[in-house]
Amino acid sequence: MADETIEAKLKRMGLVLPQPTRVDPGVKLPFAPVRVIGDRAYISGHGPTNPDGTLALPLGKLGGGVTIEQGYAAARLAGLAILASLKRELGDLERVRAWIKVLGMVNSAEGFTKQPQVINGFSELILELYGPERGAHARSAVGMAGLPFNIPVEIEAEVLIG
Amino acid sequence: MADETIEAKLKRMGLVLPQPTRVDPGVKLPFAPVRVIGDRAYISGHGPTNPDGTLALPLGKLGGGVTIEQGYAAARLAGLAILASLKRELGDLERVRAWIKVLGMVNSAEGFTKQPQVINGFSELILELYGPERGAHARSAVGMAGLPFNIPVEIEAEVLIG
Amino acid sequence: MADETIEAKLKRMGLVLPQPTRVDPGVKLPFAPVRVIGDRAYISGHGPTNPDGTLALPLGKLGGGVTIEQGYAAARLAGLAILASLKRELGDLERVRAWIKVLGMVNSAEGFTKQPQVINGFSELILELYGPERGAHARSAVGMAGLPFNIPVEIEAEVLIG
Repeated sequence: MADETIEAKLKRMGLVLPQPTRVDPGVKLPFAPVRVIGDRAYISGHGPTNPDGTLALPLGKLGGGVTIEQGYAAARLAGLAILASLKRELGDLERVRAWIKVLGMVNSAEGFTKQPQVINGFSELILELYGPERGAHARSAVGMAGLPFNIPVEIEAEVLIG
Repeated sequence: MADETIEAKLKRMGLVLPQPTRVDPGVKLPFAPVRVIGDRAYISGHGPTNPDGTLALPLGKLGGGVTIEQGYAAARLAGLAILASLKRELGDLERVRAWIKVLGMVNSAEGFTKQPQVINGFSELILELYGPERGAHARSAVGMAGLPFNIPVEIEAEVLIG
Repeated sequence: MADETIEAKLKRMGLVLPQPTRVDPGVKLPFAPVRVIGDRAYISGHGPTNPDGTLALPLGKLGGGVTIEQGYAAARLAGLAILASLKRELGDLERVRAWIKVLGMVNSAEGFTKQPQVINGFSELILELYGPERGAHARSAVGMAGLPFNIPVEIEAEVLIG
């Protein structure tokens, strides 16, 4: 299936790219989900969303009510939200020639130290979709004192585009 | 006023670019406020300062004494400190052809989740000065467990230069 | 000694580049320590390690048991781990033409605000090895609520390569 497209892989895996993130209309978010400059696309921090763009539950902190399994699933959903933003900006997910760099931010209660196991939900999705060469990326997975809307995970990234 | 310069806009808005950040002389900061490599300028984390470069008050955490309004003002001041560093490095703020990427770090007490409303103080300043095309940027606005000197906000960024 | 190589400097300073980071084999780390794209190398978050690649002690938080001196030493060890990863990826540390940008993340207990003094252990090592021009870098040094394996410091960076 080396020639299978990203879109076809998503469909085969039963995954849906969500609508744009929807938050309380009182909250202004005056920035671009994706900023393209030259051959790079810079991706703003994304949280996990449902297919309709609303924030996915549960909210909260790892080590403080949200389990590692839930955090892993949230990181995977944040990945789908990022792919949806990339598709809206680039038109075609095949234009992503290489993943470059990922910052995985985990909403962390005191004492939580398993940030990598959470952000693996994102990394393993990207590697499954893009394969080991295009999908490889540098990464940090770290613990935050708080995240917007109390989302459990927020992920930003930079990719090479063609 | 499409042809008004950034400097003229700042003047019209009554905004002052501060002197370089001044901290206790016992603290070594062995890094560049701005690092230019090719057509990119990489901007170190900046906090809010007064016109003379001293740290602006209040210090402290959002959700722990510092209000959202104070945090918004601090993010705007951090933006002015960044513009001042860019001017010193580049000579002319018109050389910034595009804002690319912003990491907005908010000193956050337990339970604080309104990081976007704080960092909007920075984003709205940049958009007002540079307009919706040059000023657009990818962004993450997230909560830190602590920041140097207990500043409420620290912002780093990357811009395209000509 | 302007022509002394980085490797020769390391040897003269008695510094050893560690083996690849070794963690509990149950933990998957599905990302690249260094990702090269064009003339840039993007370096994943690295913590302090011993020469054999095991995590260096002490673990824990600054302001919560780990002293500034220990944190400074940890940041220096994280620098050696990064240099080791760069050497494995690039073959020769002379290929680093310029340091660009560093994010220094300090595992911070409530009230700890001396992140710069900790990350100076990294910055001063890089400046000593690469000199003031190649070694200069933009930097943020900030406080995290938690880090993987409870390491005291994690550092990621971007460099220009030739």
